[in-house]
Amino acid sequence: MSLVVVGTVALDSVKTPFGEANDVLGGSATYFATAASYFTKVRLVAVVGRDFPGEHLRFLESKKIDLSGLQTLDGKTFRWRGEYGFQLNEAHTLETQLNVLEEFRPDLPASYRDAEMVFLGNIDPRLQQEVLRQVKRPKLVACDTMNFWIEGKRDDLNQTLRQVDIVIINDGEARELAAEANLVRAARKILSEGPKTLIIKRGEYGVLMFNEKTAFAAPAYPLEAVFDPTGAGDSFAGGFMGYLTQSGDFSDVGIRRAVIYGSVMASFNVESFSLDRLSRLTRNEIDDRYREFGRLTYFEDLKTV
Amino acid sequence: MSLVVVGTVALDSVKTPFGEANDVLGGSATYFATAASYFTKVRLVAVVGRDFPGEHLRFLESKKIDLSGLQTLDGKTFRWRGEYGFQLNEAHTLETQLNVLEEFRPDLPASYRDAEMVFLGNIDPRLQQEVLRQVKRPKLVACDTMNFWIEGKRDDLNQTLRQVDIVIINDGEARELAAEANLVRAARKILSEGPKTLIIKRGEYGVLMFNEKTAFAAPAYPLEAVFDPTGAGDSFAGGFMGYLTQSGDFSDVGIRRAVIYGSVMASFNVESFSLDRLSRLTRNEIDDRYREFGRLTYFEDLKTV
Repeated sequence: MSLVVVGTVALDSVKTPFGEANDVLGGSATYFATAASYFTKVRLVAVVGRDFPGEHLRFLESKKIDLSGLQTLDGKTFRWRGEYGFQLNEAHTLETQLNVLEEFRPDLPASYRDAEMVFLGNIDPRLQQEVLRQVKRPKLVACDTMNFWIEGKRDDLNQTLRQVDIVIINDGEARELAAEANLVRAARKILSEGPKTLIIKRGEYGVLMFNEKTAFAAPAYPLEAVFDPTGAGDSFAGGFMGYLTQSGDFSDVGIRRAVIYGSVMASFNVESFSLDRLSRLTRNEIDDRYREFGRLTYFEDLKTV
Repeated sequence: MSLVVVGTVALDSVKTPFGEANDVLGGSATYFATAASYFTKVRLVAVVGRDFPGEHLRFLESKKIDLSGLQTLDGKTFRWRGEYGFQLNEAHTLETQLNVLEEFRPDLPASYRDAEMVFLGNIDPRLQQEVLRQVKRPKLVACDTMNFWIEGKRDDLNQTLRQVDIVIINDGEARELAAEANLVRAARKILSEGPKTLIIKRGEYGVLMFNEKTAFAAPAYPLEAVFDPTGAGDSFAGGFMGYLTQSGDFSDVGIRRAVIYGSVMASFNVESFSLDRLSRLTRNEIDDRYREFGRLTYFEDLKTV
C-alpha cells in the first residue's frame, strides 16, 4: 500500500533550555514523512520557496520519500520560530511567516491518486478536502488539526471530520473541538461526528485512543534527556500511519500496535534538535524500543494470580 | 501481615464544578485506610477532636479498621477547605485549620508495634520518624510527603527518606525534592537517597514507578465523571499498600500489580464526594476494574507479530 501525506515543510528556529537551532529543517509533513519512511514509501504533498536548501531535498530523497508532489513557488519557505520553557510540553510560538504557504494549493501528481492511505496534516481544512477530492477511494484517511482551524473554520473542519477514519489531535484540541473538559465525554462527542477512531496526544503523558468499543492508554517513553519536542506529534502520526500502511491491519489490535510504533518514533524525535535523531535510526532500534514499551507497561493479569 | 498507617483524619469542605460538600469525612489516613481495608486489616494512627462525629467512627469500624491508635484530644478536629476548577488535577487550598493536629504526637498501642507494613502519610517528617521508632523491624515502610516539608523541614525529611523502602509522591513534589525538572533524572536522584522504589503520582495521567532496574508506567482509568479528586493519592497509596500486605510479594512483578490496585482504588474514589464511592465497594468490583486496566493497556508484543 502507499501513503500520501499533505502538510508543511518548514524552516524552524527553536530555542529550548538546552540550546537553540536556527533555520533548521522542520514542518509537519517533514517529521511525518521521515518517521513513516522506516515503515513504508511516503508520497509528500507540500510547498517550499526558492530559498529551500538543496541538502534538505537530498535528505528527504535519501529516505525514499517521493517528492513529486512537492511544489516550489517563487518566494520564501514557510518559517516558524518557537521557544520551550522547562515545561517542555508546550511550545510558545514567537513568529510564523507563512510565505509560500499562503498560495499553496495541493496538486497531486497522477502517480499519487491511487494512494490507499492518506494523512491530512494540520493545514486549512479546505486544503485537506482538496487533497481528498484528488485521491481515489483511499482505504484509510487520518487527519490532524489545531485550535486555529477549530476556532476559525469550524464548518470546513466538520466537513473534513465527516470524511476521515482517524483523528489525531492533542488533548487541548480535543477539549476545544468537543467543547467538553472531560476527555472521555469529549472523545464520545468527536466520534459521533464521523471518525471511527480518535487518538489524543498528551505529550509527556502519552496517548489515549478511543473507538466505539474500547479505550487504549499508552505512556510516553520516560526519557532522561528531552532536547526538543518540536515535531513529536507529527513523528507520532508518521510512525502510526507508516506502520498501518506496512501492516494493513486496521483492527483494534493493529491500531494499538500502531499507537506504540507512533510513540516510539515520537520518543526518538525529542532526543535531539530538528530531525537529527529521527533521520538516523535503524528498524532494529525502533523494534527494540517497541519492546521496551512492552516492559514499561507490563503487569500480570489477574488470571495468573 | 498487618498494616499501620499514620496520617490525618479530617473534616473537609470541598467545592468542585459539580457540587460541594461541607464538613465531610476526609484526611489522608481516612482515605488510605478505607482503600486498604478491602485487602487487609488496617491499624490507624491519627488524632481527632471532641467534635468528631460518632457516625464517622462507626463507619471506620465497619471497615474493620483498628482505631485503638486514634487519639481524641480536647479541641476541634483538623479541617481542610479546598476548591477545584475544571482542571481537576490540582486542589486550591482555601483554608487549613490544624486544630488538634498541632498537638499530635503519635503513640502506637502495644498491639501495633509488631506491624510488618507501615505507611507514613503526609505529616511532619519528625512525627513520621516517631512512628518508625515505635515499630519493631517492619518488613516494608512507605511514605508520602509534600512541598511544605520539602521546603521547611528538609533535614528531617532526608532522615525519613533514608529509612523508607518506597516513596509515593506526586510529580511536582518529585521535581522539587530532586531540584530537577526531568522526572527520570529526578527519580534517579531520589532513589540515590535511600528508597528502593519511587512511585510518582500524576493525577489524571496515571503513575510512574521507578526502581533500580526498571520503570513502569500505569495510566489513570479514563472516567466519564470525575466528581471530586480529594483523596485520590491517598486512596492510591491505600490500595497499593493494602495489596502488598495481602500478597506479601515485594518483587517488581508484585509491586507493579500493587500499582494497578492503587490506581483502581483512586479511580473509584474520584467518582463521588468524600468517601461515598470508596466506602461501598466489593472486592469483585475492584477485581473487575483491575481487569479493565489490563484491557486499557494491552498491546501485542513483537514476538507475536
